[in-house]
Amino acid sequence: MPLSLKPAEPLTPRIALTMGDPCGVGPEILVKVLRQGIRPEGCSLIVVGDPSALRRASRLLLQPLSFRLVEDMAQLHPEEAPDAVVVLAPVALEERDMEYGRPTERTCRAVIRYIQCAAELALQGRVDAICTCPINKAHLHRHGFAFPGHTEFLQELTHTEEVVMMLAGPRLRVALVTIHEPLSNVPQLITGERIRRTIAITGEALQRDFGILNPRIAVAGLNPHAGEEGRFGREEIERVRPIVESFAESPFQLVGPLPPDTVFHRAYQGEFDVVVAMYHDQGLIPVKLVHFDEAVNVTLGMPIVRTSVDHGTAYDLAGRGIAREGSLRAAIACAAAMAGNRLRAQISSR
Amino acid sequence: MPLSLKPAEPLTPRIALTMGDPCGVGPEILVKVLRQGIRPEGCSLIVVGDPSALRRASRLLLQPLSFRLVEDMAQLHPEEAPDAVVVLAPVALEERDMEYGRPTERTCRAVIRYIQCAAELALQGRVDAICTCPINKAHLHRHGFAFPGHTEFLQELTHTEEVVMMLAGPRLRVALVTIHEPLSNVPQLITGERIRRTIAITGEALQRDFGILNPRIAVAGLNPHAGEEGRFGREEIERVRPIVESFAESPFQLVGPLPPDTVFHRAYQGEFDVVVAMYHDQGLIPVKLVHFDEAVNVTLGMPIVRTSVDHGTAYDLAGRGIAREGSLRAAIACAAAMAGNRLRAQISSR
Repeated sequence: MPLSLKPAEPLTPRIALTMGDPCGVGPEILVKVLRQGIRPEGCSLIVVGDPSALRRASRLLLQPLSFRLVEDMAQLHPEEAPDAVVVLAPVALEERDMEYGRPTERTCRAVIRYIQCAAELALQGRVDAICTCPINKAHLHRHGFAFPGHTEFLQELTHTEEVVMMLAGPRLRVALVTIHEPLSNVPQLITGERIRRTIAITGEALQRDFGILNPRIAVAGLNPHAGEEGRFGREEIERVRPIVESFAESPFQLVGPLPPDTVFHRAYQGEFDVVVAMYHDQGLIPVKLVHFDEAVNVTLGMPIVRTSVDHGTAYDLAGRGIAREGSLRAAIACAAAMAGNRLRAQISSR
Repeated sequence: MPLSLKPAEPLTPRIALTMGDPCGVGPEILVKVLRQGIRPEGCSLIVVGDPSALRRASRLLLQPLSFRLVEDMAQLHPEEAPDAVVVLAPVALEERDMEYGRPTERTCRAVIRYIQCAAELALQGRVDAICTCPINKAHLHRHGFAFPGHTEFLQELTHTEEVVMMLAGPRLRVALVTIHEPLSNVPQLITGERIRRTIAITGEALQRDFGILNPRIAVAGLNPHAGEEGRFGREEIERVRPIVESFAESPFQLVGPLPPDTVFHRAYQGEFDVVVAMYHDQGLIPVKLVHFDEAVNVTLGMPIVRTSVDHGTAYDLAGRGIAREGSLRAAIACAAAMAGNRLRAQISSR
């Protein structure tokens, strides 16, 4: 009798998509993606945002979009109709709150509420991942939003002490030790502890969320040629190398500190699963060069799966129907894959 | 009567190729390129180096190579047989000076002499460009070579006060404001004067050597998002922007300071002729990522045309026949194009 293989349990990751700022490109990239019928890994999609903003974008794009409207989180049951697009509208917006490029105070409160809702759904286990469209930080700050950005807000909502920002494209992934810092502050900020934490969170996320058992992690140096044995700086010798060595017994395959000007090429060629970069542009220049329209911003280390587009509200493009949806599509696919890995791990540990 | 167009005067740029360290990959990449019969713009090639190192590489690669040997600069007349490879050997080396990976003091003196000869030929107008194979700086320094590198030595030989290092590939060119500096020194080194000088030398070289009348020059910022109006650093506001504005009346089309994480993508897409980068890895990460095997190191601002491969002696690869010659081929083609532009300018100004 042939071996009977039980079919894998069907996985339907449920993903909450926050609309972000309805006065930016969020609604139109959402319509473009939802219309294209993307359902990576057969996931269910719940837009948390404003239905009239979506309808307006749908008219603009001449792309009819049908969705089921839910006004209260309690009534949300995406599993009942996994193929339908559901729009959860926890706040009522008016026409005047949605002028392109001109958000109001009410828009601001709505944008914050969308994120809170999505995080709550994820924490309650009612969705398996969240994927965020862009917000305008400067505008939110003017109305009292107390967090530097999206990520820090989600960190607070999920009570997470430390997170790592990863940019991921089809061939290149980078995780950042420091993010939005003046370059002159970077050398003092890349402490051994920060490097260690970034490596640990990144490695664990690659295992849990990306299904890579022994992730190959390259750690970039800070200085040209990774300092060339101290000739162009000593941070590699004093801080990076000891930390890399301290991971010798871990399940991670670590190498570094490596010369920054060649490590990304090597990763792009398939030698590493991720490059740990010391600062924003060291990591983002290569990712945006080769994955301009398909890079995803992933927040590692939180109890919930969170991905994001890697662009802003683009007020100058909003309402013209020309914003490209590649990054959102990639962000959804990435969230679905990560959520799928977590679901599979839960099933196999039952 | 139809207009009679006089055919363009034939241009045969003469290029001196220094062998660099005969114990590194120089000889084998030279043989690979010379064997492939490369004659960009029909140039004449003069190797300044050791004939037995070339013969050994030719045996190793099973690629017969015939050349005409000249032992004295005075006897060099490449124009007499422009299609022949000429080897100028100003120093006699012995077998023991050429062990792969183990240069001697005599090798060291020869390497220096090759560079001096090539520079002299160029200054005398007997060649139109020089193209250099890699030297080992650490080794040369042990034997008293007093210059940080190749470029500084050539600067001295040609009595040039200021030069700019440019990395050029088929789609991306970058010029560097600072080069081999610890990252922590970069913020104080990118003075307005240094930025101004880099832009001026780069722009003039694009006009004279690359034939671009109104070069489109993008100037990268130093900080993430080019400082985001001072939120992540003020160097853009205080130093980069005023300098960019000071070029308003120049024939250069300048923009900047631009966010470093997107400017290289834009240049790669064809929007700019060159990106002026503030530091080594800001410029080299993108160039090496997309032009790994075809980037050329060009020294701008000297009275002579000089290009170089963008890799080192690679002692670990030397003698195995596997070193790739792409960068040398690109460096010769670039030198030929630059020399061709200077020759054409001379002809048209007659």
